[in-house]
Amino acid sequence: MVQAWHECISSELERVEAVMNDVTRSDNPQLREMCQYVLSNHGKRIRPAITILSYYSCGGRDAKRAIDVGAAIELIHNATLIHDDINDQGEVRRGAKALYKEYSLGKSIVAGDYMFALGFRLIGSAAPAIVDYIVEAASAMGTGEFSQKRYERNVAVGEPQYMNIISGKTARLIECAAKCGAYLAASDEMEIVDRVGEFAFRTGQAFQIVDDVLDVIGYEDNTGKKPGNDILEGKPTLPTIYAIEDPQVGPRVREVFEDPHATSADAAEAIALIAKTDAAARCLDKAKVLVEDAVPLLEPLPASEYKDSLIELARFIAARDR
Amino acid sequence: MVQAWHECISSELERVEAVMNDVTRSDNPQLREMCQYVLSNHGKRIRPAITILSYYSCGGRDAKRAIDVGAAIELIHNATLIHDDINDQGEVRRGAKALYKEYSLGKSIVAGDYMFALGFRLIGSAAPAIVDYIVEAASAMGTGEFSQKRYERNVAVGEPQYMNIISGKTARLIECAAKCGAYLAASDEMEIVDRVGEFAFRTGQAFQIVDDVLDVIGYEDNTGKKPGNDILEGKPTLPTIYAIEDPQVGPRVREVFEDPHATSADAAEAIALIAKTDAAARCLDKAKVLVEDAVPLLEPLPASEYKDSLIELARFIAARDR
Repeated sequence: MVQAWHECISSELERVEAVMNDVTRSDNPQLREMCQYVLSNHGKRIRPAITILSYYSCGGRDAKRAIDVGAAIELIHNATLIHDDINDQGEVRRGAKALYKEYSLGKSIVAGDYMFALGFRLIGSAAPAIVDYIVEAASAMGTGEFSQKRYERNVAVGEPQYMNIISGKTARLIECAAKCGAYLAASDEMEIVDRVGEFAFRTGQAFQIVDDVLDVIGYEDNTGKKPGNDILEGKPTLPTIYAIEDPQVGPRVREVFEDPHATSADAAEAIALIAKTDAAARCLDKAKVLVEDAVPLLEPLPASEYKDSLIELARFIAARDR
Repeated sequence: MVQAWHECISSELERVEAVMNDVTRSDNPQLREMCQYVLSNHGKRIRPAITILSYYSCGGRDAKRAIDVGAAIELIHNATLIHDDINDQGEVRRGAKALYKEYSLGKSIVAGDYMFALGFRLIGSAAPAIVDYIVEAASAMGTGEFSQKRYERNVAVGEPQYMNIISGKTARLIECAAKCGAYLAASDEMEIVDRVGEFAFRTGQAFQIVDDVLDVIGYEDNTGKKPGNDILEGKPTLPTIYAIEDPQVGPRVREVFEDPHATSADAAEAIALIAKTDAAARCLDKAKVLVEDAVPLLEPLPASEYKDSLIELARFIAARDR
């Protein structure tokens, strides 16, 4: 898939890297090294891209503030990933060892807190609304993680509960990235800010659905993660929920999902069973529909290459294979 | 010792409790329960007391903002304690089981992040200077923890390195508590804000020195912690640094401090040896001198019961036995 959505903001995304690099200069060499370790193994930088594209789409001109806020959100996102890996005992992140595996658990907790604080430092002097958006999203991540834990190995979880979990865990921060960008450009047009936010919120839900699909049909080469992790941990995901509904393979998938002693072999078996159902296809359809239904929300925005790129980015998210 | 410093602000401190109680109302019952667990086993609330006393000492009248900011700082402080206990494998906190021992490690990491975010939410709409003070202090805690780890079981650490570690780890947040209070009352008099901040910074150093002394001479009944923990973990503290200088007992204390396999019996032996030296007395003297030398910084403040209480609180901190 050609990914052109970032072309029109490539210099801004470079500046995001520079800002993150700059603020993680710590007095302590190892703390800096750990921040670099996390940031250098970098992801798609989807959140800052959404902030900047939203900013320009809403008529912003000088992206300096949007770049700072985008960098702040990316730092906060990476801070939560550090803690998530500890939490989920995830050993690999984007094809490299998780931070706590490379360094230590204790140091990684502190490094995560530190990156969290650096993110807040970057937005410290921003408008109160921006600070509010970000802290709301940050606390929603906490409740999302907890709801997820509550439904671990629990077949009572259905699609509504799942959508609720991923809203807090993932979609709120992506919504926040968009609202910050829109607000910086058009704080006098709150309806626009809300529309762009809602567009990104649904895109964020699509993002997590695809992420969860990749755990059951993804290739390790692409995702840098061993597939089957989620089911092994009893983490409720939409493909599993759909597969459990299947009259043929459902009962066995359910068994593995509920079993706290499930082995890697069980997980591999469950994944092979899920692959026989239409669960993944239904999920990808749902992700696509979420994004397509959200596109009209952006109608009031004037036509621009940034608006086109924002939509393209959302479609990329719903169809990505890594 | 009579502790009267909180009498003149007792209703404000109750309001701090109410604010913290209020903001930790989460959608997720267990997340709320965990926050309550941490907050109900409450400490001395020294940080909010310093914020409120600084606020009134500098001429503030309506303490609402100071109460919110004090509650925010206390939430952030408690968030770091949750993570510190995981980090240090501390099993007991204020006489009760550490959160991660009562719940799980993963949940406790998230609960800490959540309380951190709630703290920032409370200050979200405060003046940019307040946000700046708090994020600076929060990131200093990260670097302080790292410097401490760097000097673990390392006899190269002397008094200057130790003072540097405790500045980041403890004194900066206490300084921040005071500066926020002073700023809310007298943002047009930055010299006053800085003086009150410096007073609290030195008080914060004294606080940590006494804390470290209590680890070697404290009684478990008072502190709720088993003494000797620090030396067992190879954590550099001032009483240990002083004791290692002692020609008689120094070499053995050093041995235990450096030994990653030191047992509880070794730690108990080291503590008994430290007790034979003047290390604890020297530390307590230093704490007292830090506070007394800082008192004149408050001279420009008009006489008031709040100013008296602020000084009394600092003296209490330097002489407390728990």
